[in-house]
Amino acid sequence: MSVERMDGLVAVLDAIRSDNGITQSRLAQRVGLGRTVVAQRVAHLEAAGLVVQDGLGPSNGGRAPRLLRLRDRAGLVAGADIGATGMAVGLADLSGRVVAQVHEQVDVADGPDVVLGRVEELVDRLLAGLADPPPLWAIGVGVPGPVEFATSRPVAPPIMPGWDGHPIRERLSGRFAVPVWVDNDVNVLALGELRTNPAAARAGDLLYLKIGTGIGAGLVSGGRLHRGVNGCAGDIGHVAVAEADAVICRCGNVGCLEAVAGGAALARDGRRLAESGASPGMAEVLAATGDLTAADVTAAAERGDPAARAMLARAGRLVGGTLATLVSFYNPGLVVLGGGVVHAGDHVLAAIRESVYRRSLPLATRTLRIEPSVLGEAAGLAGAVHLALDNLFTPERLARWLPAGSPSGRPELAAAPERVPA
Amino acid sequence: MSVERMDGLVAVLDAIRSDNGITQSRLAQRVGLGRTVVAQRVAHLEAAGLVVQDGLGPSNGGRAPRLLRLRDRAGLVAGADIGATGMAVGLADLSGRVVAQVHEQVDVADGPDVVLGRVEELVDRLLAGLADPPPLWAIGVGVPGPVEFATSRPVAPPIMPGWDGHPIRERLSGRFAVPVWVDNDVNVLALGELRTNPAAARAGDLLYLKIGTGIGAGLVSGGRLHRGVNGCAGDIGHVAVAEADAVICRCGNVGCLEAVAGGAALARDGRRLAESGASPGMAEVLAATGDLTAADVTAAAERGDPAARAMLARAGRLVGGTLATLVSFYNPGLVVLGGGVVHAGDHVLAAIRESVYRRSLPLATRTLRIEPSVLGEAAGLAGAVHLALDNLFTPERLARWLPAGSPSGRPELAAAPERVPA
Repeated sequence: MSVERMDGLVAVLDAIRSDNGITQSRLAQRVGLGRTVVAQRVAHLEAAGLVVQDGLGPSNGGRAPRLLRLRDRAGLVAGADIGATGMAVGLADLSGRVVAQVHEQVDVADGPDVVLGRVEELVDRLLAGLADPPPLWAIGVGVPGPVEFATSRPVAPPIMPGWDGHPIRERLSGRFAVPVWVDNDVNVLALGELRTNPAAARAGDLLYLKIGTGIGAGLVSGGRLHRGVNGCAGDIGHVAVAEADAVICRCGNVGCLEAVAGGAALARDGRRLAESGASPGMAEVLAATGDLTAADVTAAAERGDPAARAMLARAGRLVGGTLATLVSFYNPGLVVLGGGVVHAGDHVLAAIRESVYRRSLPLATRTLRIEPSVLGEAAGLAGAVHLALDNLFTPERLARWLPAGSPSGRPELAAAPERVPA
Repeated sequence: MSVERMDGLVAVLDAIRSDNGITQSRLAQRVGLGRTVVAQRVAHLEAAGLVVQDGLGPSNGGRAPRLLRLRDRAGLVAGADIGATGMAVGLADLSGRVVAQVHEQVDVADGPDVVLGRVEELVDRLLAGLADPPPLWAIGVGVPGPVEFATSRPVAPPIMPGWDGHPIRERLSGRFAVPVWVDNDVNVLALGELRTNPAAARAGDLLYLKIGTGIGAGLVSGGRLHRGVNGCAGDIGHVAVAEADAVICRCGNVGCLEAVAGGAALARDGRRLAESGASPGMAEVLAATGDLTAADVTAAAERGDPAARAMLARAGRLVGGTLATLVSFYNPGLVVLGGGVVHAGDHVLAAIRESVYRRSLPLATRTLRIEPSVLGEAAGLAGAVHLALDNLFTPERLARWLPAGSPSGRPELAAAPERVPA
């Protein structure tokens, strides 16, 4: 079927995807198409096995209208949220609901063959664990480094040795014969919040700030990811921080955000406090384990260690200072905080908020909310799954997918395709 | 005519607006609609007097196809680009081509009654100067302060006393009986670049940085303005600058960008250099006029004054440091520089560029270009005009605008409406 005949088809499908259980008249209103056109498009989508009429809506006096639903069990998408030291792999139905998932330790520095090989095994295992699984239609992947979105290849990722330029899409697509999309972990987290956290969806303009080993942001503008022309928007780990100490960063510059407030900086400063005797609690941990991590500092602060608390509050102020600039510049409705910082307690959140409210334009903070992620790490897998779903249903792909000929009446329900057209 | 019947109408009109002289088959491809639907929509637009068939395109062997053009003389839009000390008011046809304009001095601090009264007089005068003018359909306005876009009202604008909350839309709409849109000056400049500078249109993700008395940015994401949830995105005059002196800003904070690199800061520092004897050239100007402005500093630098040059280069580095953060965060393809800085010579531009390339993420500067505006202040009037054009043609407005009944064949060319439906 030609693309020309498919006008409005994707819009109709997207409206049913985002408002599952919609009546046909409300659908026509929402997509701004006439009822006849919408009925034809719905018939196409039914013929393709993507949409079903199921249940009855409230009557307006006449016959109760049938509700249109995504046939969300028609196909599956896989998501892989690959972090520096762990990953989540899952399967989801077409509504984005995760139906099977597994989390495990992984060292991304083991390189793409090891890590992607493991992703493939886990997808196979999850598929095998489902009784009568529908076909796999697409895969979405998040990785902890910059990605050129158009080609799905990492670009000089600092903590992913061996991954630079690796053809992740071609590898997974070759193995599973489905389309694949790859993005950096923070964009994937932002997308997960946008699609599954109602407050994020309402905000429209959203800033996701991940503060962990690295520090990065995901930007949403008008309900869609802003990736920038090279796909690296939000890569703020090495911006210069006002009022910061002159710490030399691994990148060679001075006073980078990551070098004064990232996980390695917390570990470094915590060790200094432990060794100087300023924090007997952290000194104990260091003596017992021979090492001190950012998580140890956070744990010490939670136990009430004053030195650890002061250190985290200072890191919060430095992050907040940069965030204040970004808030004035971008004017988001919601800032979602993720990464290790969400375990660091309310005093860090308070320090971040205070800096933002002190330094941002008053108008930009009038309705701004700054909240730790309620989804936490689950946003990563949700985002990977929605990355696949958001890109899967294009006019071209749907056109090749649909049965030939234009169904004039109600078609027979066709089987969903085993294979997604390329 | 109901909105439901208008599916694709705005898309068809927008495609003809942006690709004037398009064939019907290319139009169908571009908007992704079937040829029959497109032919009907084109007939509607012809009936409304908005589109004409004019000229022949290249033949593909058969009959040469007719070209579709916007009937750009069907109506006029007015634009007003109001600055702190001057304004431009103009009339444009529906393609955005300015057909009449006037520039004059104005003091925005005289308040909305004086300034908008003058805008009204100038629009009247320009209309009276056109032989047989088509009807006025819309007005777009740029003002030098924050605006709540939805209501078109200024929000606590620092250099616009008397304008806070002023109902600019209601006033001009009441006077001319046309729809009115208002935005801040930097967004209007960014929109002007986007719509009339081919390099800006190609960039897609654009950052317009105006460095004058104030410092502000306009953001374009994926070809549309990113205004933020309160309409104040880009308001960066008071972000904290790394490596800046501890200058106290009029806002009460320390080290604000505007306080160290804005026009008032240049005048202040220039006066200090003049008085200390470090710059005999600027001392002469100060003695002769009793005052020293940012323009005087720029002029001194252009004459080769070393102290003025060093000062401007330092301001360029400070602006560049903040811009580096914004480039890493936003990853634009093009940064357009506007405001007084474009007259300050290549050494300032070089200082800005050097800071950005030194401190931004390498991937974010791989294809980045940083250019002074080629349109200059003309971008403001162009942007005001396009602000009106971009918002004028909604499905609802077109539906009320079109003649009743569905033209099945080629309709008679209807007269364009004298009045735009509200």
